[in-house]
Amino acid sequence: MTADTVMKKIQGGGSVSVYDACNGFGQVAASAAIDECMKTASENGIGAVGIRNTNNFGTAGYFGEKAANNGMIGIVMGNAAPAIAPPGGTKAILGTNPICFAFPSPETEFPIVLDMATSNAARGKIRLALRNGEKIPLGWALDSNGEPTDDPAAALEGSLIPMGGYKGFGLSMMIDIMAGLITGSAYGGEVKNLNHPNSYSRNGNLFIVIDPTFFISKDEYDLRMKTLIENIRSCGEPGKVTLPGEIEYNSYLRSVDSINLKDTQISDTNKLAASLGIGKELVPAERKGGNK
Amino acid sequence: MTADTVMKKIQGGGSVSVYDACNGFGQVAASAAIDECMKTASENGIGAVGIRNTNNFGTAGYFGEKAANNGMIGIVMGNAAPAIAPPGGTKAILGTNPICFAFPSPETEFPIVLDMATSNAARGKIRLALRNGEKIPLGWALDSNGEPTDDPAAALEGSLIPMGGYKGFGLSMMIDIMAGLITGSAYGGEVKNLNHPNSYSRNGNLFIVIDPTFFISKDEYDLRMKTLIENIRSCGEPGKVTLPGEIEYNSYLRSVDSINLKDTQISDTNKLAASLGIGKELVPAERKGGNK
Repeated sequence: MTADTVMKKIQGGGSVSVYDACNGFGQVAASAAIDECMKTASENGIGAVGIRNTNNFGTAGYFGEKAANNGMIGIVMGNAAPAIAPPGGTKAILGTNPICFAFPSPETEFPIVLDMATSNAARGKIRLALRNGEKIPLGWALDSNGEPTDDPAAALEGSLIPMGGYKGFGLSMMIDIMAGLITGSAYGGEVKNLNHPNSYSRNGNLFIVIDPTFFISKDEYDLRMKTLIENIRSCGEPGKVTLPGEIEYNSYLRSVDSINLKDTQISDTNKLAASLGIGKELVPAERKGGNK
Repeated sequence: MTADTVMKKIQGGGSVSVYDACNGFGQVAASAAIDECMKTASENGIGAVGIRNTNNFGTAGYFGEKAANNGMIGIVMGNAAPAIAPPGGTKAILGTNPICFAFPSPETEFPIVLDMATSNAARGKIRLALRNGEKIPLGWALDSNGEPTDDPAAALEGSLIPMGGYKGFGLSMMIDIMAGLITGSAYGGEVKNLNHPNSYSRNGNLFIVIDPTFFISKDEYDLRMKTLIENIRSCGEPGKVTLPGEIEYNSYLRSVDSINLKDTQISDTNKLAASLGIGKELVPAERKGGNK
C-alpha cells in the first residue's frame, strides 16, 4: 500500500469515469469517487465511477451515506479477498463483497442504509471473535474441509457461508464483475488481504449515484419516503420494527462519548502505540469515572 | 389490466426516463424500457428507465438477458404485492421484489444471469405447490400468526421468509424504493396481485443498463470474463460447480421439444381453454410417443 492516494483518470465518457487509485488508501479513493459520482448524477440523473487498484475502504455505508446526505441515492460495491466458495465447489474464490444502498430520508434522523456482506457474517466479525477468544455461531463458516465450524481461526482458513446459499454467491459474483472485472482491477480470486506481505490488495469499487429528482420532485420523494417508513413501522408493535441503518445509527449515538472496546483490544492498541512511540494511552471508560 | 400497453413518457432528462405503462402488460412495457435503456447506455455508458403503473413482467431475467445478448450489463428490479414482513414485525408489507443482474459471457453458451426473489422462495413456487397439492419446505414461509408452515395455502395467507433474514428484507425495501417509490408507482404495501378483482396492480420497475466498453475494451472484457468463469469452475470437481444462469439454460434446452407439466396443470389449462373455446388441447408427452 502506498501512503499517498493518487487518483489517475483512466477513462471518462458520458456518465462514466474510471480511476486508478495507484494502491493508495481505499477511504480516500472512495470519498473522491462518490463526490464525482454525485456531480455526474446531478447533471445526468445517474452516474457511475469505477476504481481499480484500491484498498479496503472500511465500510461501504459511509460513502453511500455521503450521497444520501446530499439528497441522492448511493450504490456502493467493492470486491474483496477470497472467502466464499461457489455452489458445488469447496475452494473459496470470491470475497464477502459488500454492497450498499443508501437513500435520503428527511423523516428519520438517519438515512435509510443497507450495507451488507454477501456472506451470512462479515469477515471482520470473525476476525474480532478470534481476537477476543470467542467462538462463532455455526452457520457462519466452513473449515478448509468444507465442514461447519465454530472456531474463528478454522473459519478464516476455510470459507464463509454465503447469505441465502447460491443467491449470496451469485450476488458476490455480480459485485466481483462490476467492481473488479470491468474496472480493470483484480477479480476472480486475485484480490489480496490488506495485510498481505508481498502484494498490493488491488480491490476494485463501483459507485452508482442516482438523483431522484430526475424521477419525481423532491417534495413527492420526501412525502413518499415518509409514508413508506410509517407503513413499514406499522407492521409490528410500536418501536419493535427496525429500519435498515437504524441499529447502526443508535450504535453511533452510543459511541459519541466512548467506544465499547474489549480489554484485549485496548491492551493490543496500547502495546502497538507504545512500540511506535505514538498516540495517547487508551483508558477504559469506568477508570475515567463511569462514562457510558 | 388494460389490453393495450401504452407507454406515456412522464420524465426524461440526461440519462434517465420515466414512463407510465397505463396498466398495460408488464412484459411489453419492460421490453420497451430495456431497449431504451440500452440505447442510453450505448451513448452515455449508463442509463436508467423507470416504469410506473405496470403489471407483473413474469421473469426479470428475460429482460436482463436482452441487454447481455447485446453486449451490455442489465440490472432489472420490480416491486410486487406484499409478501414479507420487516424484522421485528409480523405483517407482510413488501413484495418478494425480484432483482436481476445479467452479463455478456462469450465463453459460455448462456449469459451470466442472477435472477432472484428477495425471499427464500419465489411466490410462484408456492402457488405451484398449492396447485399440485404438495407441501412446501419449512423455511420458506410463516402463517398469518407468524409461525413456520409447510402448507402452501397458509403460506400465501401469511408471509414469506426473506433470504438471509434482515438482509433480504433490506434488499426488498431498496427495490421497493428504486422500482416503486421514485418511479411514481405503487410502493410500501400498495402493489396489488395481478388477479386482484377491483384494482390495478400498479407494479413499478427500474432498469439500469451499463455499457462495459465505457470501462474497458470489449476484448479485455471477454478475456477477463473467460478467466473469471474458469477460476470459479476450478473450485470444485469438474462439472460440479454451476454458474448463475446455467441451471436455467439447461432447463431451457430440455424444454425445446416439450415442457414438463404436472397432470393437474395440463387438465386445468385444457378446461380453461375449452371454456373459452380457444387453443389446442395439451397432450402429455408420453401419449405422443415418448418425447422427453
